[in-house]
Parts: sequence; C-alpha cells; structure tokens
Amino acid sequence: MLHPTDNGRRYELTSPTAMPVAGGFLWNRKMMIQATCRGYATAQFMQPEPAKYSHSPNIEAKTFMQPEQNYYAHHPGRFVYVKDEETNEIFSAPYEPVRAKLDSFSFSQGQSDITWTVECLGIRVLMRLSLPTDDVAELWTINVTNLSDRERKISVYPYFVIGYKSWMNQSAVYREDLGGVVASCIAPYQKVEDYPKQKYFKDKTFFLCEKPPVSWETRQQSLEGEGGLHAPSAILERDELSGSDAIYETPAAAVQYRETLAASEEREYRFLFGPAFDDAEIKGIKEKYLSAKAFETTAQEYAAYVASGSGVLRIETPDKDLDNFINNWIARQTFYHGDVNRLSTDPQTRNYLQDNMGMSYIRPATARDAFITALKQQEPNGSMPDGIILIEGGTLKYINQIPHTDHCVWLPVALETYLAETGDYDLLKESLTSKHGDTYTIFDRFSRAVDWLLGAKDEYGISYLAQGDWCDPLNMAGYKGKGVSGWLTVATAFAAKLWADVCEQVGNKEAAEHFRAGAKEFNDAANKHLWEGDWYLRGITDDGVLFGVSTDVEGRIWLNPQAWAILSGAAPPERTAKILKEVEEQLETPYGAAMFAPPYTKMREDIGRVTQKFPGSAENGSVYNHASAFYIHSLYSIGESDRAYRLLRKMIPGPTEEDYLQRGQMPVFIPNYYRGAYHQYPRTAGRSSQLFNTGTIPWVYRSFIEGLCGLRGDADGLCVNPQLPSHWDGIKATRVFRGATFNVDIQRADVESVTVSVDGATLPEPRVTGIREGATYQLSVSVPRKSAA
Amino acid sequence: MLHPTDNGRRYELTSPTAMPVAGGFLWNRKMMIQATCRGYATAQFMQPEPAKYSHSPNIEAKTFMQPEQNYYAHHPGRFVYVKDEETNEIFSAPYEPVRAKLDSFSFSQGQSDITWTVECLGIRVLMRLSLPTDDVAELWTINVTNLSDRERKISVYPYFVIGYKSWMNQSAVYREDLGGVVASCIAPYQKVEDYPKQKYFKDKTFFLCEKPPVSWETRQQSLEGEGGLHAPSAILERDELSGSDAIYETPAAAVQYRETLAASEEREYRFLFGPAFDDAEIKGIKEKYLSAKAFETTAQEYAAYVASGSGVLRIETPDKDLDNFINNWIARQTFYHGDVNRLSTDPQTRNYLQDNMGMSYIRPATARDAFITALKQQEPNGSMPDGIILIEGGTLKYINQIPHTDHCVWLPVALETYLAETGDYDLLKESLTSKHGDTYTIFDRFSRAVDWLLGAKDEYGISYLAQGDWCDPLNMAGYKGKGVSGWLTVATAFAAKLWADVCEQVGNKEAAEHFRAGAKEFNDAANKHLWEGDWYLRGITDDGVLFGVSTDVEGRIWLNPQAWAILSGAAPPERTAKILKEVEEQLETPYGAAMFAPPYTKMREDIGRVTQKFPGSAENGSVYNHASAFYIHSLYSIGESDRAYRLLRKMIPGPTEEDYLQRGQMPVFIPNYYRGAYHQYPRTAGRSSQLFNTGTIPWVYRSFIEGLCGLRGDADGLCVNPQLPSHWDGIKATRVFRGATFNVDIQRADVESVTVSVDGATLPEPRVTGIREGATYQLSVSVPRKSAA
Repeated sequence: MLHPTDNGRRYELTSPTAMPVAGGFLWNRKMMIQATCRGYATAQFMQPEPAKYSHSPNIEAKTFMQPEQNYYAHHPGRFVYVKDEETNEIFSAPYEPVRAKLDSFSFSQGQSDITWTVECLGIRVLMRLSLPTDDVAELWTINVTNLSDRERKISVYPYFVIGYKSWMNQSAVYREDLGGVVASCIAPYQKVEDYPKQKYFKDKTFFLCEKPPVSWETRQQSLEGEGGLHAPSAILERDELSGSDAIYETPAAAVQYRETLAASEEREYRFLFGPAFDDAEIKGIKEKYLSAKAFETTAQEYAAYVASGSGVLRIETPDKDLDNFINNWIARQTFYHGDVNRLSTDPQTRNYLQDNMGMSYIRPATARDAFITALKQQEPNGSMPDGIILIEGGTLKYINQIPHTDHCVWLPVALETYLAETGDYDLLKESLTSKHGDTYTIFDRFSRAVDWLLGAKDEYGISYLAQGDWCDPLNMAGYKGKGVSGWLTVATAFAAKLWADVCEQVGNKEAAEHFRAGAKEFNDAANKHLWEGDWYLRGITDDGVLFGVSTDVEGRIWLNPQAWAILSGAAPPERTAKILKEVEEQLETPYGAAMFAPPYTKMREDIGRVTQKFPGSAENGSVYNHASAFYIHSLYSIGESDRAYRLLRKMIPGPTEEDYLQRGQMPVFIPNYYRGAYHQYPRTAGRSSQLFNTGTIPWVYRSFIEGLCGLRGDADGLCVNPQLPSHWDGIKATRVFRGATFNVDIQRADVESVTVSVDGATLPEPRVTGIREGATYQLSVSVPRKSAA
Repeated sequence: MLHPTDNGRRYELTSPTAMPVAGGFLWNRKMMIQATCRGYATAQFMQPEPAKYSHSPNIEAKTFMQPEQNYYAHHPGRFVYVKDEETNEIFSAPYEPVRAKLDSFSFSQGQSDITWTVECLGIRVLMRLSLPTDDVAELWTINVTNLSDRERKISVYPYFVIGYKSWMNQSAVYREDLGGVVASCIAPYQKVEDYPKQKYFKDKTFFLCEKPPVSWETRQQSLEGEGGLHAPSAILERDELSGSDAIYETPAAAVQYRETLAASEEREYRFLFGPAFDDAEIKGIKEKYLSAKAFETTAQEYAAYVASGSGVLRIETPDKDLDNFINNWIARQTFYHGDVNRLSTDPQTRNYLQDNMGMSYIRPATARDAFITALKQQEPNGSMPDGIILIEGGTLKYINQIPHTDHCVWLPVALETYLAETGDYDLLKESLTSKHGDTYTIFDRFSRAVDWLLGAKDEYGISYLAQGDWCDPLNMAGYKGKGVSGWLTVATAFAAKLWADVCEQVGNKEAAEHFRAGAKEFNDAANKHLWEGDWYLRGITDDGVLFGVSTDVEGRIWLNPQAWAILSGAAPPERTAKILKEVEEQLETPYGAAMFAPPYTKMREDIGRVTQKFPGSAENGSVYNHASAFYIHSLYSIGESDRAYRLLRKMIPGPTEEDYLQRGQMPVFIPNYYRGAYHQYPRTAGRSSQLFNTGTIPWVYRSFIEGLCGLRGDADGLCVNPQLPSHWDGIKATRVFRGATFNVDIQRADVESVTVSVDGATLPEPRVTGIREGATYQLSVSVPRKSAA
C-alpha cells in the first residue's frame, strides 16, 4: 500500500481509499501547494499576505492554516476526466470526483514533484505536478496512454477547480489568444483605504494549455449540469463541451481533447495553472514555461533548489524507513520552514527563531540574517514582540495579537544550534539599531532579552504567564498579570544557562556568572515551588490555583515542564527518575507522548482555551510533536538513548501498515500533531493533522544529528558522542560540517567510552578539530556495548 | 411549471431543474431560513449577531447576506433518502443530493410554511417546514406514502446537514436520552475579551426524532463512504446505518426508519432541527414542540403571527398574478423587514427607517418606536449615524463603518408615510434624550437633521458625497471631502420640502418657510449646476470631474437623480419630459429600469467600487429595484400612471414562463436586484439576486396603495386619487385605514375628475373624513376615461 522508491526519495501510495486525506506538498519562494492522493489541493501564494487562486465553492474564511482539513466533493482540486467515446464510460484521475473503481493507482511524492498514475478502462493517466523556483504557477504534465491492444477513441478533460472568487466580480472565458481559460475577479473591499493595498492583487486565475483543446467549459454549472461533479452532464451528454463563459457565475477550467490512440500510443499534455495580475503577466508566464523544454529546465532548476536544502546528515541504520526519512525528508521539511517562513509575513517570534535554528544546518547565512531581523524588532525593554514582521507595512495577525511571555527564550536556544554548527561568535559583536532607534551589540541584545526574562517573575521567583507562553491557548491562567508558568520558569533557567555558556565562551566571565546565577535562582524557585508530588506542575492561575498537578482529574501532568526541568538542570537525578517514569506511564502512547494527560473534556475558565479544544486535538492532550521533540532532546541530554529513540520513532509514521493507516499519512513530513486522547478515543488516536508547519522539525533533526549520531559542533571542532538505541550494534553516517564531510562508521565495541579514530588515527578525545573546509574525513567511532536494559 | 394555489397564497414550482436556485423563505422573531426548491437551505439565528447551526463543509467567511448564493453538492440542506429494500434503488427528496429522475415534483411556498412533494419509485415523500414564532427551531413533518398497489419494504433516511462547526472542537453523537443527534462544538476565539461574548453561544445543533429510528450516522464521512452524497455507501451498502459518532470530524444527522408499507399506506414523522446551548435547552424544546399536537398548535400560532402582518390592501384587477402578489406577498415581505430588521443588530440607518416606513402600514406602533430608537442615536450635530444599534453593546459592522451622507434624508421621507397612515402628529411633541445626553423634542430632532443636510453643501450649494450616499460603492468620488452628489442634492431638497409640509401642518409657519427656502436653494442649485444635456448628472468627484453625464461612455445616466429631481420639484415640466424619454430609452429593459447605464466594465478610480462590480450585478447597472421603486414613486407623483404600472409590473416576476425562467424566481418576494447589463449580457440579464432583503418593498407597497389605488391618508382623512393604467377599466380594492375598512370599487366613467361616493352618497371632494374606527365603508370611485395614449 505504501512503498518507498528511489532510495526513499519518493514515497508511493497505491490506494486512493486507504488513507484518503494523505498527501504531500511542494513549495517555492512564493507559494505552497498541499495535494492529496485523491486529487484535492490547497494552494497559497504571497501577495504579500497568503492568497488563493483555486477556491472553495463558497466564501471561505480568511484564516490561519488549519490542521485536519476537511475535503468534500467541490473542494479545490486538479482532475482529469477520461471518456471512452465508444462506450460513454468515464473515470477521473487521480480518483476524485468520479471515484471509479481503478485497475491501478499510485500517488507518489518525490523531492521536487508529485505524481499520480491511474489505470482504468484500459487507459493510463499520469499526472505530474512541479513548480518553478521563483514564480507562482503550477506546472502540470499529463500523459495518457492506451494500454489496450486495440485502437481507442477517447476524450480527455482536464478539470481544474477555480471556485468562488469574489462576490464583487467574477467571470471566466476561454481566451484563444492566450490559449486557455482566464478567470477574473475583483477582491472585495469596502473601505477606501483598503483599495491601494488590493489594487495590484493577482485577481486572475489562468489555466493555460500547450496544445489547443477542441472545446471547453469555463462555467462550473455548465460543466456539471444535472449530472454533478461525479458524472458531469457536459461530458456524459455531449460530444463536445459547450464553450460556456462564466458571467458573474462560479468559474471553472475544463477543456477537452479528443484522441484516437493506437495500441500503446501515448499523448502528452502540458498545462500551467496559477494567479496573475493581467494578460501581460499571463502571456509572460506562458512564454517562460509552457513548453517541453521549459518544463524540463524548470524541473531541473527546482530540483536543484530543493537539493540546495538537503542538509548535513545521511545515515545507514538497521531501520530503513528511518534512514529514508532522515536522508530524504527531514532536511526538506526543515528547509521549507527556514527558506519561506511558512509563507507568513509575520511568523510568531518563537517559530521564526526555531525555524531558523533548523536553517542553521541547511543554510547558516539565512539563520544569521534571521537573528538580525528579529533583534531589530526587539522592544526597548529587552523583550521580543509576538511576531517578526517580514514585509514593510506588515501587521501582527491572529495569535500574534495575543501577548505571550516566552519569546526571549528562543534567542539563546536557537543561537546554541547556530553557534554549534558555525562557530560564528563574531555575530555577537555586530552593532544593531532597532526599529525603535536604540543601538546595541547583538551580544547586548541577547543579554537584555535574557535579563527581561529574569525580571518577569513574581514574588516567588516564578515566571509570569500572561495570556500564554509556548502553549498559546493557556490564555486565562495568567491574563490578570498574576498567574505563572511552570514551564517558563525552567525555560528561563535553561535560556539563561545557555546564554551564560556563550558569555563564558566569549570570555565575558562577569556576564556568565550573572546569567548562571539567574538560571540557578529560577531552577531553585522551580524546585521549591513547582515540584508537586512526582513531577513539575504546569502553572498557577491568577487566583492561585495550581494546575498540572496530581489532584487534577484532567490536565494532570504536562510534558513541557518536565522536559525543560531536565534541560535547565533543575531536576536532580531522583526527580528526573520520577519524571521519566510518570511520562512513560501517563503520557506515552503508541503514537508518541501526549502534551499532557488526561485531555480536558470541558472548559476550565481559570485556564482557558486549551480546555475548550476537542480532547486529543491540537493542543488538548494531543501527541503534540513539538513538545515531544523537546522531551526527546532532554532525554539525549541525560543519555536516555532508548527512550529517546522510541519516541523519535513514533514521530515518523510507520513502518507497519496498521500504523500508516491509523496515522493516515505518508512519512514525507512530521505533522504538528497526532491526535491524542488515546485512552478516550482509540478510533481516532494517532491520526495525523496533515499540517506540516511545525516547530518540531528542527528539534528532531537536531536530535538525530546531536543525539543519536552524536555529531555536534563546538567553537573549534566536532564532538562525537553517539547515543544508539541499545538494540543497534552500529550505524553509518555522513555528516557535513563546516564545509568538510565526515564519513562516520559507528560500531559498538569493547570500549569504556566513545573512541574516535580519524583516517585510521585514534584521537585523544572524541572531538575532531582543525577541520579543513572541503576535506573528507573517515571516522571510525567505537561506542560502549550496552548492558541489557 | 409555476402555479399559484389557494388564491395565490401559495406558489408551487413543479420542476426541480427549471429554476434550480428558486426558493422561498420563512422567518420568525429569532431566525430566518431561505430554502431552495432542490433542498438546500441557508438559515441564520440571532445570538445576538447572526449565526448558523447548519454549516458548509469548510470554514465559511462571516459576511453580510449575499445575493446570488452559489449551491454545490455539500451546501447545507435538508434531505430525505428513500431506499427500496427489495431492489436497492434510491432517490432523495426533494431532489438533491441524488438528483434521481422523479415522477412528480412540487415545491410550494405558502404564507407560513414551505412544502416539497416528490414521487419516485412508487413512493411519495412530503416534506413540510414550519417555524415556531419565538424559538429557534425548524419543525419538519415528513410523510411517506406507498403509491403502488402492493406492499413495499423501504428505508427512509432523513439527512440534515450539520457541516463544519469549528476547528476548535466539534463532535456528534446519537443521544438515546434526547432521541436524536446532538452535534457539539466550541466557537473558536483567540482573545480573552471575546470569551464572555461567546460563552453562552448556542454551539450545539440538535436533530430530534419523534419516533426512534432503527439506526443513525452522525459522522458525515461515515454516511458518504466512497459512494458520495449522491450514492451514500452507508445507505447503498448496508442494511443499517453504522451508528457512527463524530470525533472532531464533520458531524451530520442521518437516521434510518425501516418500514413495510401496505398499498397506499402512509407514515408520518416529525423532527426538530436547530441550535441550543445545552442539553436542558434541547430537552425543553423537545417537550415543547415534538408532537403532532404541538406541531399543529405551533403552526396555527405561526400562521397567526404572519397574518398579523397582512397589511392594509387587497385588490382585484385584470391582472391576477399582480393581485396574488399584492394580496398575499408584498405585506408579508414588508412585515419581515419591519418586524425583525432583516435579522441585523445594526441595520443601516436608511434601511431601518425605510423598513419602518413599510411597517407604518403593517403595525404603526413599531414604526413609531423606530423613529424614537433612531433619533436617540442622533449625533449632537444633528446628523445620523451610519447604522442604528439595536442591542446593548452592539457595534457597527461592514458597510456601516463607511461614512455616508444621506441618512438624515430618510427621516422626513419615512415620516411622511407614517403620518399619512396614522395622523400621529403627537409623536413630534415628545421629548427625547439621546445617548449623547442632549434633549430635544422629536420635532426639533427632525429639524436638526434636515438642517444638517442643508448645511452639508459646497460653495455651489450642492451636497457633499463623502464615501457614499444611498449608493454605497461610490466610495472614491467624494472621500477627500470635496466631491458632491447630484442625487443627494435633490434628495435634500425633497427631504426639506417634506419636512416643511409637516411644519406647516403643525402650524409652525416659520419653520415651514425656512425649510421650504432650503429646499428651493437646493433645487435651484441642482438646476443650475447639475442639469447637463438632457438629464441630471450623478455627481462631481473630488477633482471636479462630472459623472453620470452624456460624455461618459459608461455610467452615462443614473436613475436616482432623475427620480428625486421629480420628487423634489427641481425638474420643471420640460426637463421632466426629457428625463422620462431618456430613462425609457437608456435605462428601461424587459426586467425593469437599470440603476444606471451603460454598466462599468472597468475601474474608474475617481468614482470607486461601483465600477469594480461585475457589469449588471448588484449596483453596477443592475435593475436595482430600490432605485426603480423611487422612480416609480416619482412617476405617480406626476401622474405618469402607465409608465409607473409598466415598471411595477416588471418588478414582479412573471407572468410568462419565459420570464420566470429568466428571473429564476417565484413571485413570492421582490429581490434587491435583477441582473442588468441587458444589452451586454442578454443570457444572464434579468436573473434574480434571490436576496429578499431590500428597501424596495415599502416603496412598492406604497406605490400600490397611494399611487395605483390612490388611497392615501392625510391628517384627518383618506384622499382618493386612483391612477390606473390606461388599459384597465376598473379595479376593486379593500383598504384598511385607521381601523376602518374601505371596500372600494374603482371604475372609469365619464367624469372630468375623480368622484367618490361613500355608501351611496357623493362626496364634495375625493376625500373621506370623519372616519370611524371599526366601521366599513363602501366607496364607489369614478375616474376619468383616459384619452388614447
């Protein structure tokens, strides 16, 4: 049902019904498209805010990208109807909207394209989607092959959904001069001041055909008739489409090719689909892309673009599915986040910094710029805004209008990875004038941010929560200004500790001491006030109610305070042992560790929105991978390699068919969550959100690089400390680091500690220094055998 | 295809495909539902802002009520699947989603219910929808009859769409204790301050069954399976529905009844569908309504409610379709507007006043209260706000956030009708303290409003336009504060003239002179500066560009300035003659007079949004009935009875089948517009917007009462001045006026002027005075024969 091919660089799904919402995604610097195996698609482009050119049939809400999207007959999609002209039978590729019984089916996500191959009625349809690197356009190749041993007369009808464009003005016509359907609209507005913002919107949707079709429909209703999308009247009841226009009616793009195919004969078609401002732009895009040659060149360029983000690690382990994910997909998803900032103009500060933490591995210069961009928006008091605005005149939207208290944490956290990967301590010396006009070195800006965190505490030395910390929907626990966050207290300690280490490294002992003392204060306060029974509590409300404590029937134990208490050093060994036990017992499920448990089933007005979410969904007790990833990182920090590996493995769908089916997702990305509430709702637990925007991904990448493979940089070299799961005897890894390539062979051996030899010479300590850019090193690493668990 | 029954109190449509989006509507004091002949429905209720309990399959935009709504397979609807258990054949009533070929079909809008009767496979399904008067719930009766002469084994599956309720939390289960499906959700929010507003939202949707079903599906996907809505797997592939729950999945309400019906045997089912806050409320609604007896009582009460708005006029003319509309439908639509204010919490001031102008005929006390409510929100400078807030804490939304300059006009305009109908000049003596704290009599408030209008003029004495006058989307002509409105200039004159008449009537000669002088100044200014060629121009932009003038290729002539120049008395006879000719030649079409012509085909940045709308749609050159109604009123004011009748008749769909088909609407309401651009887009011209919210309706009612029938009140009596179209010899009318009933027989006779006899005695002038409440008068009215046109 689900197969890797091309050494795991593609994943193929061979049934359209087994995992009906499974899909993949492509992106470029201006757009993103998520396509499902059955042919539905959600595409957005930036103008400069996210916009659509293929719409639902009604007026959609403008909202942030949603998990677990719902698909229905008229959802935007890209389809090809095929009619046997001799029998009047039809089917559609890839599956929707006809849902005919297919002879074969394959949905295949590659690194830089998505393909569907469908066979029915003795005809094969291959659909291939790729994108250009810098323009907003979908490039479609459709191949139709006669698989039967006789001549066939068929009609082929690509049907691309345009949908409801605007209540103000919408229409569509087939344009002979441009060679395709052009739908037009005017984005509605009511306030004069909005007009200039919208004036240059790409309000047209084009569907361009390389080969002129024999007929077309540009009006949705005219295509469907009384037959409906699954049996369109225009296809079943007519020889040719009617050539309809859409006059303030829902537009569609459907064209017909009538073909006589000899046995085994094939036809190839190419189409462009996307938004444009005017005819001139459409014409330009057509000239640039709509030919076999241009498709080939564009595909090569786009493949090169994706390959430019292929990251720093390849592995060869006993777990081939895991290898595929690490070698082919995790860097791709990390690159997506870091290169286009989730196609947002105002990423949340914490997301922006963590996405660029990932980018430290992919393209460190981008991560460097991100620190500068973010710090230019630092508030005069040292705190960080809720979102980082990336365009002139941009505004904070949605959740970024809600005050959160954690954003400063992510500066030292992301910096740790950046410095480990690059050793670029010079960054800290740069002077930066913020948009508020104040000027400080980046070093000072970091210090000010951490000092702000250290100051944002109550009389017990615990961090304020405001309307949320990392957990957005904890919006009522601290909004009156008194409530405090268990997590943020230890996160502040961790951030201060990390920053103290940097201060130490750059020789600023005084600052190092100051921040180390701050970290200790917060850790001490956490241990004094936040340890309750066998774990750290989640917070205390404005009215003094402790939550995330053993007396809670719901939301009893939260993962984040435990993970970060380990990272910050707050948790002494005996407390850590208790934490590990409680997390395993209370939070771990077959699909990963829940963010907290048990999930809330009703509103707790003293805590807020998290308790209103559906149990197991999004943040309410789901396996929220971002939180799991923190915990995994904390496990590696204390050498808990078996637990860490087990949870990592649960984050990547598969490898069993049962697991894929339950998740409903291919292992081409890690989603932001899997449904939790495993004990309450076993039917749906584990289901993927299908949302590939997640802060999870850099942490998982980091856990593989630094944790499992143990190949982490420091100021001057590469430290080697693999943490293989105990049932593995060895792995091979290729690590790119500071321009050099390390071919690493890690094997268990009778050693007492990790032993490294480089090109045959054993090193005095497991750390490679004097790395030469461009060089390749052969590392043999011996790690101690594990005693039986 | 379309038939009136029950003396025109019902309209029936006998094909689901001929006019696919035709439908009707029901409302009560808390909700509204628009249902199409094919089974789709759009329902809203107030909590306090408009909300839904049956949703589309995706996240819908929160928007104002849209014209020309688009329907698609998964649009909200109420359906009944029927399966022949012996053959496994299915159909659905009323037509969607299966779209089976039916043996017979009837969609019937009555005064207080909507029914569908469908026959297929030898089974008849009757669906009847009614509402309670004061609760939010749909009452559904479904009768299933075996029409064949043998026993039949069938299953009946009501399927009511619940749809995508919330990304935060949605679910559904069948509740044995409540006897139905209950879907739950939590309306999403992000800001703490929004929580209290949403806390008591009716977030549950119930579908309650009087008779327990044998099985159910509460999960949309489980119902559809791979079959899809047109051939649901749960129905076609199973004996019983699976009893699914919906766990953070799109909910649905589908239940199964398995029946063995003898020949001619019938089953009757009752269901309740609607929103609720909690189980207790659902239980209460069930106990109150879910029984044969309660359905009957409720239907009677609701019929009485609708009948309480049956208005003041019945006619018997040579035009039976017209009679049906006037006798049964126009008052109903007027009542809807006036009693529930279009289910808005912040009606536009002009809409609110005009809707209550209509209410002067239906329930004058409500109109009286409306003047008080509106004037309590008068600004300290005498101007009126853009919307009238009807609930505590309400806010101005959508278009009401845009400054318009015309709102004061509607005070004297609506008052004219109120006083003519009631003679309640005492209203003016009342003292009123506004929400701003100032206190004036209502008389003074009217004077201040008209004075504000008289002051809002430029150096040429022409009225400023700001971001719009009556025509909302003229938003760029005057936003800089210089542009002026041709229409508003004469509308100001008309308002001042009307108010001067009232001042005169109450004996305030000084004020009368003042306002008459003001009216004259504006009329003079209009004649001096706004007459251009053969008509009055529409306006002058901030930059001094005249528009609505003969040199304009688009938007050359606008209807409103002409109509109101006639009403205000600005237009002298020779100019009036020119206007009539130009309107007939340039604006009149088979579907009425366009608001302006030719429609704009591209943006004019100096005028604004109107030019961006699709040609012929909404305000861009459509037959905008509100503007037509003003013009018709002006025609009656100058005795142009043939033109007036012709345009009135074009406003009511039919009577020919071709006309119905082109409009796509039954004559049970007047829509806000018919598509214009008759010359550019003949295929779609005349198409109904299907939106029954419109300021048109009180004006049309008034034109029939005061114009065609000529039965208008003054301070002390009823004036009689019928204006029959010249091809009519006579009509009969019943007019209710100040508690008395007038049976009026109007006939052409050899008289030189209108002659009236009451109960056999001829009156000295055509005016009945000394009217006794409760009395019935027989009026014989002779009107002069018309010379041939």
